[in-house]
Amino acid sequence: MTNENKENSEDGPSKKALKKAQKAAEKAAKKAEYKAQNAVQDDATQEGAEVDCSVGLYGNLTLNKSQEKLPVTHKELKDLDESLANQNVTIRARLHTSRGKGRQAFFVLRSCEHTVQCVIAVGEMVSKQMIKFVCNIAKESIIDVEGKVVVTGQKIESCSIQDIEIYATKVFVVSASAQRLPLQIDDAMRPEADDPEGLQIKVNQDTRLDNRVLDLRTPTNQAIFRLEAGVCHLFREALRMRGFTEIMCPKLISSASEGGANVFGMKYFEREAFLAQSPQLYKQMAIAADFGKVFTIGPVFRAENSNTHRHLTEFVGLDLEMAFTHHYHEAVNVIGNMFTEIFRGLRDNYADEIATVNHQFPAEPFKFLDPPLCLEFKEGVALLKEAGIEMEETEDLSTPNEKLLGRLVKAKYDTDFYILDKYPLAVRPFYTMPDPNNPKWSNSYDMFMRGEEILSGAQRIHDATLLVERAKAHEIPIDTIQSYIDSFKYGCPPHAGGGIGLERVTMLYLGLDNIRKTSMFPRDPKRLTP
Amino acid sequence: MTNENKENSEDGPSKKALKKAQKAAEKAAKKAEYKAQNAVQDDATQEGAEVDCSVGLYGNLTLNKSQEKLPVTHKELKDLDESLANQNVTIRARLHTSRGKGRQAFFVLRSCEHTVQCVIAVGEMVSKQMIKFVCNIAKESIIDVEGKVVVTGQKIESCSIQDIEIYATKVFVVSASAQRLPLQIDDAMRPEADDPEGLQIKVNQDTRLDNRVLDLRTPTNQAIFRLEAGVCHLFREALRMRGFTEIMCPKLISSASEGGANVFGMKYFEREAFLAQSPQLYKQMAIAADFGKVFTIGPVFRAENSNTHRHLTEFVGLDLEMAFTHHYHEAVNVIGNMFTEIFRGLRDNYADEIATVNHQFPAEPFKFLDPPLCLEFKEGVALLKEAGIEMEETEDLSTPNEKLLGRLVKAKYDTDFYILDKYPLAVRPFYTMPDPNNPKWSNSYDMFMRGEEILSGAQRIHDATLLVERAKAHEIPIDTIQSYIDSFKYGCPPHAGGGIGLERVTMLYLGLDNIRKTSMFPRDPKRLTP
Repeated sequence: MTNENKENSEDGPSKKALKKAQKAAEKAAKKAEYKAQNAVQDDATQEGAEVDCSVGLYGNLTLNKSQEKLPVTHKELKDLDESLANQNVTIRARLHTSRGKGRQAFFVLRSCEHTVQCVIAVGEMVSKQMIKFVCNIAKESIIDVEGKVVVTGQKIESCSIQDIEIYATKVFVVSASAQRLPLQIDDAMRPEADDPEGLQIKVNQDTRLDNRVLDLRTPTNQAIFRLEAGVCHLFREALRMRGFTEIMCPKLISSASEGGANVFGMKYFEREAFLAQSPQLYKQMAIAADFGKVFTIGPVFRAENSNTHRHLTEFVGLDLEMAFTHHYHEAVNVIGNMFTEIFRGLRDNYADEIATVNHQFPAEPFKFLDPPLCLEFKEGVALLKEAGIEMEETEDLSTPNEKLLGRLVKAKYDTDFYILDKYPLAVRPFYTMPDPNNPKWSNSYDMFMRGEEILSGAQRIHDATLLVERAKAHEIPIDTIQSYIDSFKYGCPPHAGGGIGLERVTMLYLGLDNIRKTSMFPRDPKRLTP
Repeated sequence: MTNENKENSEDGPSKKALKKAQKAAEKAAKKAEYKAQNAVQDDATQEGAEVDCSVGLYGNLTLNKSQEKLPVTHKELKDLDESLANQNVTIRARLHTSRGKGRQAFFVLRSCEHTVQCVIAVGEMVSKQMIKFVCNIAKESIIDVEGKVVVTGQKIESCSIQDIEIYATKVFVVSASAQRLPLQIDDAMRPEADDPEGLQIKVNQDTRLDNRVLDLRTPTNQAIFRLEAGVCHLFREALRMRGFTEIMCPKLISSASEGGANVFGMKYFEREAFLAQSPQLYKQMAIAADFGKVFTIGPVFRAENSNTHRHLTEFVGLDLEMAFTHHYHEAVNVIGNMFTEIFRGLRDNYADEIATVNHQFPAEPFKFLDPPLCLEFKEGVALLKEAGIEMEETEDLSTPNEKLLGRLVKAKYDTDFYILDKYPLAVRPFYTMPDPNNPKWSNSYDMFMRGEEILSGAQRIHDATLLVERAKAHEIPIDTIQSYIDSFKYGCPPHAGGGIGLERVTMLYLGLDNIRKTSMFPRDPKRLTP
C-alpha cells in the first residue's frame, strides 16, 4: 500500500515534486491493479453503474512476496493514544469484528491483547462499495487500515483502547481468513463467569487445543505466554547474577535415567535410546566437571499415562545445580531467593498480563514472603495432624494432603509459596543425601505454589561409595548407572539443586486450573497434535 | 574445618572469650575426629613414634552431609591477587599437581581456568607427616587449603596466577579422587603445537569424550562452555531488546516434520511419535497466532548417519521467526544485526575465554563487518566461477565450494561472517517463498561463519493455497502436513526467520575443528554416552 511519509523539511522542492509525481503514478498503478483484481470477484464494483470514488483506497493486496522494499511506518496498536489525536496513522492488525449500519460501518481491530474501534462512513472519498467491501471482510483477516486518530467523547467499553478511535480512509486486506472459523475468538476470550444471557457459549478445551493457532490469539493466551517467557527470563537473570552458567544437556540417552519406569524408548541406529526424564545426571556431571553453579532449560519427557490437570508427557524443566561449601541450605537459600525475585518480577513487570488473565479467569493475587517460609517436613505433618489428618511422620504427602497443607500454611502464614525441607529418606530417589544425624530423614526439599509442588530438590550424594550403597538399597542394578557413579570417582564438591516445572509455575502463579492452559502446544497421553 | 573469622571489632571481650573457647573446643573435637579417622588408614601417623605437631591441621574430612551450617568465608581462586598480600585465606579447589622436595612440598590448586601455587614446609606447626599426607593426596581431589598469601619475587610461569603463592598451614581433603585417572588433565590441556620433547602425548577425542567429566575440567573446556552460554545469552538479549517473545516448542510430534527422512520414530502409548527436526512449524504457528516476533532455544534431532566434523544427531537450535511489514529484508537485517551484537559481545565480554581457548587451539581472531556483508547467491557463484569453479548459476553449493567461497569473501571483504541471499528456489524446502519476479530464485538466505553455514532461513509461504501448490510440486503428501497448512487458513502476516546451530556458532567463532568440542555431551551415530 501507499506510504504516506511526512514531507522531509530538508527536501528541496524538486524532490517534493518528484515524490508527488511518484505518488500519482503509484495511485494510478494501484487503481489498475485493483481493477484487475476486483473486476470479477468483488461484486462491490458492479453494484449499479455507480462510480466508485474510493477506487485505490481499498481492496485485497496481492500476496506479499516482498515485492517492494518500503520504510515501515505502521503504528502498533499498543502505541495508539490521545497524543496522536488528529494524526493520520496506518495500522496492521486483525479484523476482530465488524458491523454495517446504513451508510457507515464500525469495526474493531485486534493485535495481541489490544483492541481499537474504527469507523468508516460514506463521504467524499468513501463509497458505499467501500463500506460493503469492509463489511464483507472475514473476521480474523489481517488488514492494513489508514485513518485519523479521533478522541472519543465517551469511553469505548468494548475495546481495550477506550479513549480514541480511528476514522478509516483506506482498508486493504493483507491476508484473508476463511469465512468459517472453527471457534469464535469472542467466545474463547469470554470471562468464565460472564454469561448474562444464560447461553453458556464456551469453547471446550479440546476444541481450543485442536485449533490452537486461533485459540492462542485471545488476549488471555497472549498474556499467559508472554508472562511464561518472563518466568524463564527472570529465572535466568536471577541465576546469572549469582554466577551460574547455562549448560545444555542431551535428551537422547543410552539408559533410562531414573530407574526405568515411565521412559520413552526408541531405535537409535543399530541400538536403543531413551528420552531423558530429567537433566539431573548431566547437571551433576557439570558440577563434577567444575562448572560450580549451572542451570539448564529444556524439555523433559515422562511416558506416564497420567491424565490429570497437572501432568504432561513433555514439559519444560528449569533446572539448577550448585556446589556448596558447608551446608545444602546455601542452595536452598539461593533457590528460595530466586523464587522471590521471579515473583516480584512478575508482579512488577507483568501487571498488565496478570490483569488480562484475571479478567477471564479470576484468581487471588499470588502472595509470597521475603525471605520465603521454610518448614520442616515434620512440621508440615504436624499441621496436617492438627487438622485431623491421620498419617505417619515419615509417610509421603498425598496430592490432597499437599493441597490441604497449602491451605493451612496460607491461613497461618499468609503465603502462597513455601519450602518443605527434610523429607523422609525412604520417599526420595536413591541419590538423595541422607540426614547426617537421623537415617529417617534426608537433605531434600520440595517447594510449593498454592499447595502444589513446583520444585523437587536435594543435596545429592557426591561420593561414589555411598551412591553404590544407596542404589543397592533401592534395588537399582549398578551396571545401568555405572557411568553416573563413575562421575563421582575423581573428586566432586558437595552439591544440591532442583528441577522446576515451568508450566506449573505459570499455571499456579496465575491461579489457573489446568496445565494445558500454560503449555503452548501441550502433550499428554491422548494429545500429540498440533 | 575451622573457620578463621576475623575478630569483629564491635564484639565485647566476653564474646571474644566465648569465641576463643569455642574454637579451642572445636579444635579438640577435630583432633579427636582426626585421630579416629586416620588411626588406621593413614600411615603418616604411624611413622616412627614421632609426635605430630600438625594434628588437627590436615586430614580427610568426613563426607559432607551438611553436618554444620557455617558462614562461607572461602575465597575463590579468581579473586586472589596482590591486594590480599600477607592475609590468611581459605580456598577450596582441585589438587592439580604436587611434588615433595625434602622438607617441603609444592602443589598447584586449580579451579576452572585458574591455577595457583602453594608451598608447605616443615616448621613449628607443619610436621613431616603433614607434608607426606599432602604429597599422597590424589591429583584431582578437592581440598580445602588455608594459608598466607605471599607475593612472589619472580613470576610463576606454570600457573595462571603468577604474582602470588599460598604458604599453606592447613590442608583437608573434601572429596578424594581415585589415584588412577583415565586421562591426565595436563595432557588434555596441552597446546596442540606444544611438544618440546617430541613425546606426542595427546589425549584422543574418544578418550576425552568417554571421560568427559575429567576432560571438561581443562581450562579450554571451561572457557568454551562459558562462552557458549554467552552466545545463548547474547542471542536472547539481542532479540528481547527488539520485542521478541521466547516460546517453547514441543519435541514430540505426530508426523515427520520436514518430509520424513532422517527422523527418529518411537512408540507413544498406542501410536507412533517422532522427534522434531526443527521447531520451524511451531514458530510459524506462533506467528499465525499473533506473537509477532518469537525465538526459541532447544534441542533438535536428526537421525542422519553423518560422521563428520560438523554433524550431530542432537544439537541445540537457536531459532527465530518474525512477522514483517513489507519485505523479508526487514528480518534479514534483524538477524544480521543480531549476529553483529553476538560477535561484539563475545569479543568484548569473553576476551579471557577466547585467549584461554586460543592458547590451546590457536586461531585467527574472528572478523566481522557492521553492518554485515550481504551478497546475492548469484554473486557468490560469480566469485566461485572467477576462481575457476565450474557450476550452474542455480546449482546448490557443495560443502567444499562453501568453504572456498568463505575464503574468497574473506580475501575480498575481510570478514568471517556474511549473508548469502536469494538462493535458487529448487534447492530450498517447499515452504520457501518464491521470488516475486523470477521463479528461478527464492526469498531465502544462508549465513556463514568462516565459510561454514550456521543459519538457514527464508520468507515462508503464509498463504495456504500457495503452500499446497508448492508442497505438491515437491511431491509431499498433503495429508501429512494438513495441520501445518491449516495454520495459514485464518489469516497470517508475511513472515521470515531462521534456525541457527549453537554448537556450530561456538566452534566457528573460536576457529575449532570439531563440533564435538562445543557440545558438552555430544551425540552422533556412534556416541550416546555419557
